[in-house]
Amino acid sequence: MAAKTTYPHLVEPQDVDFTLRASISNLIAKTLNVAGTDADSKGFGIRALKPENRSWVLSRMAIEIDRRPAEYTPYNITTWVSDYGRAMSTRNFVLDCEGEIFGRATTQWSMIDFNTRRAVDLRYIAEHNDAVWNEEPPIERAGKLAAVEAEGTMTHRVAYSDIDFNRHTNSLRYFDLMLDCLPIELHETDRPVRVDINFLNETRYGQELTVGYRHEGDRWEFEVATDEGTVACRTSFEWR
Amino acid sequence: MAAKTTYPHLVEPQDVDFTLRASISNLIAKTLNVAGTDADSKGFGIRALKPENRSWVLSRMAIEIDRRPAEYTPYNITTWVSDYGRAMSTRNFVLDCEGEIFGRATTQWSMIDFNTRRAVDLRYIAEHNDAVWNEEPPIERAGKLAAVEAEGTMTHRVAYSDIDFNRHTNSLRYFDLMLDCLPIELHETDRPVRVDINFLNETRYGQELTVGYRHEGDRWEFEVATDEGTVACRTSFEWR
Repeated sequence: MAAKTTYPHLVEPQDVDFTLRASISNLIAKTLNVAGTDADSKGFGIRALKPENRSWVLSRMAIEIDRRPAEYTPYNITTWVSDYGRAMSTRNFVLDCEGEIFGRATTQWSMIDFNTRRAVDLRYIAEHNDAVWNEEPPIERAGKLAAVEAEGTMTHRVAYSDIDFNRHTNSLRYFDLMLDCLPIELHETDRPVRVDINFLNETRYGQELTVGYRHEGDRWEFEVATDEGTVACRTSFEWR
Repeated sequence: MAAKTTYPHLVEPQDVDFTLRASISNLIAKTLNVAGTDADSKGFGIRALKPENRSWVLSRMAIEIDRRPAEYTPYNITTWVSDYGRAMSTRNFVLDCEGEIFGRATTQWSMIDFNTRRAVDLRYIAEHNDAVWNEEPPIERAGKLAAVEAEGTMTHRVAYSDIDFNRHTNSLRYFDLMLDCLPIELHETDRPVRVDINFLNETRYGQELTVGYRHEGDRWEFEVATDEGTVACRTSFEWR
């Protein structure tokens, strides 16, 4: 049924960085976990799709974080599907702490049929259609990000601790790698930040990833690519 | 008060490796989290010690894992302090799934006074003394591990995503680094394993770690050291 649904969270010790606040990558991870949980609970999640050999694929995400909650802070993530077309569904999120909103996100997903390797026409997925809640995304959707002419790079070979059950790199690992490239001083502060992400291709166990970055003032751009030149994702961080 | 206490857990999606079972490092992390939670709840955890500028330091751990629970499996971790001397306290753990024990661990901790940089005499900590439950450790304590003459190495620079609030490397990261050195085939199986760990020194943001390893049959030995030659930890894994 159409519904905005709220999932309670708590910032636990394993969620925080050295500032004892939830890290950006942790807040992104929790937000994406809620997408999965909510879709599952409404009958169109990956658990329901698995027997049909289908799955959701995340293609873009934008998230704005005004401040990162401190360790042991309870907070909520509220989510809803606002609209969809033939090939792409938009799911939104608002993060609040005791009613005070500190984060907003919007994501775009397609449903892939692994038999045909093509996108499924979403107009025929009744459970998904029934879940649509007619409320606009809380922030502007992620834009298409251009290739990054890197001024610096870092490399990482995809290892056991990076992979999911398909032996593809867990997308969340890209955020750790990108955030590790930033000057530590940028993590010390708790300034509002907007993150735009384009997910482009999967990467696999054993591949060497190159994380390229460039920045201009408080805007940092990243591109993660394999040693074979396949671009895995592009991301921009804009601190305000 | 003297008590064995049980903490319920659930294997969540972020806890599993590509085999969809909880990873060894995740089970170690959950076990050590329980140590902190239990000590806090009984009045002698790091929360109570912080105002006195004291903390617990883990020096050795042994854990035996018979099988790794699958995603969405509920399980329990039961813990108790079995005994202590002037400088070292022994805390034990049993992991069970619906009453069937699949893991056992024992750990040795000292309490450090940051003002003097010396171990606190545990005989004067009433809350800790009161918590002792007179039951032997469920497995043999971790032995002292010898230096490792490495047959292979992997390096890693300590980065933002690796550090705790002291800007020291989170000890649990060592396990990811070590497990990443193993042949992927060893992770595919779910054989019983015993892990012995000696924690020796802290490492810091920006240091380059070298993970050295050697193996003989199903026994793998690891040593993590900094570019300045300080040994952070030694670990042996013995698959059965």
